[in-house]
Amino acid sequence: MTKPLIIVNLKAYAEGMGERAGIIAAAAGEIGEESGVTIGVAPAYTDLHPIAMHYAIPVYAQHIDGVAPGAHTGHVTAEQISAAGASGTLINHSERRLTLANIEGSLAAARKFDLQTVICTNNEATTAAAAALSPDYVAIEPPELIGTGVSVSKADPGIIERSVLAVKTVNSRVKVLTGAGISTGECIRIALDLGTDGVLLASSVVKAKDPALVLRDLVSLI
Amino acid sequence: MTKPLIIVNLKAYAEGMGERAGIIAAAAGEIGEESGVTIGVAPAYTDLHPIAMHYAIPVYAQHIDGVAPGAHTGHVTAEQISAAGASGTLINHSERRLTLANIEGSLAAARKFDLQTVICTNNEATTAAAAALSPDYVAIEPPELIGTGVSVSKADPGIIERSVLAVKTVNSRVKVLTGAGISTGECIRIALDLGTDGVLLASSVVKAKDPALVLRDLVSLI
Amino acid sequence: MTKPLIIVNLKAYAEGMGERAGIIAAAAGEIGEESGVTIGVAPAYTDLHPIAMHYAIPVYAQHIDGVAPGAHTGHVTAEQISAAGASGTLINHSERRLTLANIEGSLAAARKFDLQTVICTNNEATTAAAAALSPDYVAIEPPELIGTGVSVSKADPGIIERSVLAVKTVNSRVKVLTGAGISTGECIRIALDLGTDGVLLASSVVKAKDPALVLRDLVSLI
Amino acid sequence: MTKPLIIVNLKAYAEGMGERAGIIAAAAGEIGEESGVTIGVAPAYTDLHPIAMHYAIPVYAQHIDGVAPGAHTGHVTAEQISAAGASGTLINHSERRLTLANIEGSLAAARKFDLQTVICTNNEATTAAAAALSPDYVAIEPPELIGTGVSVSKADPGIIERSVLAVKTVNSRVKVLTGAGISTGECIRIALDLGTDGVLLASSVVKAKDPALVLRDLVSLI
Repeated sequence: MTKPLIIVNLKAYAEGMGERAGIIAAAAGEIGEESGVTIGVAPAYTDLHPIAMHYAIPVYAQHIDGVAPGAHTGHVTAEQISAAGASGTLINHSERRLTLANIEGSLAAARKFDLQTVICTNNEATTAAAAALSPDYVAIEPPELIGTGVSVSKADPGIIERSVLAVKTVNSRVKVLTGAGISTGECIRIALDLGTDGVLLASSVVKAKDPALVLRDLVSLI
Repeated sequence: MTKPLIIVNLKAYAEGMGERAGIIAAAAGEIGEESGVTIGVAPAYTDLHPIAMHYAIPVYAQHIDGVAPGAHTGHVTAEQISAAGASGTLINHSERRLTLANIEGSLAAARKFDLQTVICTNNEATTAAAAALSPDYVAIEPPELIGTGVSVSKADPGIIERSVLAVKTVNSRVKVLTGAGISTGECIRIALDLGTDGVLLASSVVKAKDPALVLRDLVSLI
Repeated sequence: MTKPLIIVNLKAYAEGMGERAGIIAAAAGEIGEESGVTIGVAPAYTDLHPIAMHYAIPVYAQHIDGVAPGAHTGHVTAEQISAAGASGTLINHSERRLTLANIEGSLAAARKFDLQTVICTNNEATTAAAAALSPDYVAIEPPELIGTGVSVSKADPGIIERSVLAVKTVNSRVKVLTGAGISTGECIRIALDLGTDGVLLASSVVKAKDPALVLRDLVSLI
Repeated sequence: MTKPLIIVNLKAYAEGMGERAGIIAAAAGEIGEESGVTIGVAPAYTDLHPIAMHYAIPVYAQHIDGVAPGAHTGHVTAEQISAAGASGTLINHSERRLTLANIEGSLAAARKFDLQTVICTNNEATTAAAAALSPDYVAIEPPELIGTGVSVSKADPGIIERSVLAVKTVNSRVKVLTGAGISTGECIRIALDLGTDGVLLASSVVKAKDPALVLRDLVSLI
């Protein structure tokens, strides 16, 4: 069985950049070590390099553009994030949707640099489609639950079960994360029991007064 | 075996709107009848209603937005094109790419009105992903060949074979069209022999001095 | 002084398409005639042609793409809407935002076909920028008030006054519409008194049980 | 008179990231000092922090999103680039076009952090519109000349003169850069003589074997 993966998406939160990014990354490293759970973070592009240099945890970009190096002002390439020390990238997050052609382009670009790939999806059908592209992970996040504090694993366990099944049918090597509203160890426990390989979460950790406290609870039932 | 399908995409060509749209639709009807091949057209939105009313051929929208009726200025809904008489729609054409979530949204919207769905894709991987969404058709068009006059069926038969195989593996009920550079009966013959169910084409018919002449050649070896 | 203009944006409302589009257009014609106020409608693309043929009122597209005729699947060209009988077009509506380059491209395309142009904007600064492009009209709609039923002319008269001033400073030939929450004759009266040349509205007319009743009230104090 | 400004856009060029970004920034600092011309660079987001820390030159982001800190995965905020040490940002580059509303949003966000703003435009009309938004600089780059090696100042001096005039008419405090094909000191000399305040360039410096040599030539006639 794969070791569960927790990715903390720092988004563009004021509470997740600069020094705070370091505090969260430090907590991820410490609690990951204690618990044996892999805890990664996805910081702002500008924080990628310092976070990747200072902390022995997986660091993800929040997005990459599937373009080769060249005349692409304002774009983020696989080469750039790899050089900055990232070990993977989110692709097609609900706040940064891509065309199908560009999802595939980003994936292909990431593979050239051995970057781990996590394609985000919004429902069962798009999860199956994403799995057909053979990323390392698909992360299913029902958009109506994102940022609500209502956990997908409690509110809609069916969508997780159906998504896990859809992924396994299309490409059984693809692993499944889930997200939206995950805030406690119990939420993660349920998510794992429903067949996922981990979770993608954000505000519950990033906006916490003490991120380490939340992370410690999150891994408590794994 | 399914009867082959030819869809003529009128795009926003000056030679494909208004009266010319009618001439092409009339030719599609006549030659479709003669040959037993189904020939449909995808006209401008503004021509959808007159073409659908006057010609007994399948009429496709070139794009729909996957939104329910409502406050969506400038959008095209399944309800609108259905009311205008369309029998189906292209989705995600290379000149009108959509996010994965919106491809799925457009597909779901089209199904509510029993509209035939044709998802356009650019390579083998995105074709597999599109097939996982269960449209009626996937239309694979290598972007580097679109509008070149170089036929995909001659220039890159491998991409067609691999795409057909990918579709059949993911969802065997999905039918496959191919496009890009198709201009003669021989191109279509090869495409069908490679396992596709028809073709999506544009300039070779739309810009022809005599569209009927080209269409008659296109069906000649089927 | 210019005669005031009222444009009813039918959006993609179920209550604004097909037969209902005809009912609203008929009311616009009748009450426009009675009152001497010009009342136009902006229907779905698929309804442009029938509405323009049957009613002697200005008919606007809800959006155009600033592209020349050609290989632009799913796009809407100035040539298409002109051929369908439109007399003008909205550009950059808040529900169909365009890049600055494309706003200018749409404007240039519309001018070639003598189409009236209405650029929609969201605040004072973007209104000044739009005026610098010299459209026929700028329509200022504070996004936070759209669809709320709270009239911009009552809730935020300052934004209208400052926008009118900004337009006059940049290009005094550009006329100003306002929108968002306009539902009564009193709202329009205030908007005109603040220096605008008319209004752009939608739900209050389109979703009304009796659109003619609402339109009659809207022109009552002009 | 303002001191001329040269901004070197490193785009996503392989020759402009990591170590090479440092070499170009070092050359910019050295030649800027020698010549009294301000030479800034616009590196990849991931290089912003190291470049801003190590070199006493103006450092620009290639793009920012006009959003406040928050749930905006994959976005780039003014706060992030300011924290990374940027002194300004390009906005609306031709390779990263924004809606008019978002150009204004990016500008407003940049101002909160006292970041210098450079709005890129494609022709005379959009230059006037951009000037109405009151950025520090407008950078006019005719898209048909970008990356061609054909200098805008030689190929189309008229567009520069008309753009400078348009800017001065709309808002005389806004300064003007020009770009596209600028590669020699002579090109810059002409651009300044036509009334601009500097240039925005990329490949001629970034892809040069010896960027310092090219920069030294570029400032030679100022």
